[in-house]
Amino acid sequence: MAAFGCKLFSVVSRRMCKVHCTAAPSVRALWVSAGRLQRPSGHGADVLTGKVDRFGGLTVNLADSSLPADISESAFSSLLKDGVGRWRGEGLVAVWLHLPISLSRCAAAAATLGFTYHHARADQAVLALWLGPGASRLPGYATHQIGVAGAVVDESNGKVLVVQDKNKTQNAWKFPGGLSELGENIGATAVREVEEETGVRSEFLSLLSVRQQHDHPGAFGASDLYLICRLRPLTYRIDFCTQECLRCDWLPLAELARTDQTTPITGRVARVLLHGLERGWDAVDLPMEQMPAVYSGRFYQLYHRALPPPQR
Amino acid sequence: MAAFGCKLFSVVSRRMCKVHCTAAPSVRALWVSAGRLQRPSGHGADVLTGKVDRFGGLTVNLADSSLPADISESAFSSLLKDGVGRWRGEGLVAVWLHLPISLSRCAAAAATLGFTYHHARADQAVLALWLGPGASRLPGYATHQIGVAGAVVDESNGKVLVVQDKNKTQNAWKFPGGLSELGENIGATAVREVEEETGVRSEFLSLLSVRQQHDHPGAFGASDLYLICRLRPLTYRIDFCTQECLRCDWLPLAELARTDQTTPITGRVARVLLHGLERGWDAVDLPMEQMPAVYSGRFYQLYHRALPPPQR
Repeated sequence: MAAFGCKLFSVVSRRMCKVHCTAAPSVRALWVSAGRLQRPSGHGADVLTGKVDRFGGLTVNLADSSLPADISESAFSSLLKDGVGRWRGEGLVAVWLHLPISLSRCAAAAATLGFTYHHARADQAVLALWLGPGASRLPGYATHQIGVAGAVVDESNGKVLVVQDKNKTQNAWKFPGGLSELGENIGATAVREVEEETGVRSEFLSLLSVRQQHDHPGAFGASDLYLICRLRPLTYRIDFCTQECLRCDWLPLAELARTDQTTPITGRVARVLLHGLERGWDAVDLPMEQMPAVYSGRFYQLYHRALPPPQR
Repeated sequence: MAAFGCKLFSVVSRRMCKVHCTAAPSVRALWVSAGRLQRPSGHGADVLTGKVDRFGGLTVNLADSSLPADISESAFSSLLKDGVGRWRGEGLVAVWLHLPISLSRCAAAAATLGFTYHHARADQAVLALWLGPGASRLPGYATHQIGVAGAVVDESNGKVLVVQDKNKTQNAWKFPGGLSELGENIGATAVREVEEETGVRSEFLSLLSVRQQHDHPGAFGASDLYLICRLRPLTYRIDFCTQECLRCDWLPLAELARTDQTTPITGRVARVLLHGLERGWDAVDLPMEQMPAVYSGRFYQLYHRALPPPQR
């Protein structure tokens, strides 16, 4: 784990923060004198090395090392065992092992020393070992997939765009939607999925509702956050994907709000939309605002109930 | 991937749904006649087998197989190459390879055939290979970590509980918070983190704001959803964690709303809270309701603006 800026402390589990404060004096001294400590991360003749971060963790990246590509599991196991012994003696509290997929055999070797998979993606796996006192305080990996649905409301006639999935046993009207891609904003997912499923182009207006479900079917043991958004139609002609949808139509919100030919959450959000249509969208919307992240130079998107202008 | 109920179609990327509809007739026939097709998932003398799901994907679980524990990468590569050839010929569109960490070497072998890591956790890795036409339509893995902050507002005096992190370069007031554990509800995270950081016990009232940030520092390449909640204090005495916090105090909301000794998002949410305190919490809250999931027998938690009672 590289030494990130202070911002990290506000979002990484405070457990790693606690770790920082209890690291051995020799390690704390390293942080104080060297800032972000850089040791050569190459593999010397007999020794694995890595980069120490401000939390007292060490990152060993085998892609950067000069390990032979055909190193055996037992040879790697010896190297790693030696390393872990040294690092534990130095008061380091965690080891992060980055493996290119070509060296996947090293994971089995690491497992014999207590390493477990932290996460893996594409052509890399990351394993971790807690060396510190007590229960592990390593920050976890992503826990949620994000699903987004778009409710495209035609305010001129009080209708909303809905679909019926082709493959359900019980056909029920619902808002078009799907999973966010990695790096995709909520609103972009909603607009994309609506167009792909219905042919209608739209633009994002607001977030309406959030649903959280754990051990979600199809989420590979992870959880699901399902966000339903309100969109404004830019086009109205339906050209729906017949491979996914049995039907697609503009339905009066009032009808969707009371029919039993829908799912409970769709019916509920239809009633939220009807309330907004009748009383003003301020009553239900969480509009989006893009703001700069203080430390990282990036931007984030913030959703909350609108405030009267002088108060923002 | 096991054959889940129809509910899966509403949340898994529709790309897998499209796949279902374009699978070879022989595969579709298998689904129709056999429901959830079960083939023996053990390893015969020369052949890898697995379970076919309703999307036309095959899951091969090496933990269930009778592969020798010391099977070489090359031997496994031959087996897998043979299998992939057969499965492609049968019109299957995806192969999911589940590897126990002891057989991690099989990942490198699989990579030579185009497999990539889908995800890994604890003592298991899952790799995937798209066999179907065109670009891969495999559903991805979890993309977001969830951070939750709790704003504990004492309505009797208009004050809110805030902390200053010990390790920041620029001390700024913020709401206590941290990362959700896998399977932990938003409100539970807020209450737990507030107590761990400040010693104050509280209960969840509502969701106030959602922030989304991609490639978030400390999120291992994943994104971050940061949810800020409103909590009711059950106790008031501060006993803060000195390893994490420099200071902890009850600050007047009006002061937090205008000080520059805070982060932009904290200041903004303070103004949202002030608006709620002054105009009524209905103006800003998204309260939570637990509802039963239709197909899975599980429950989910739903957040949206409150509706007048007859409309729910």
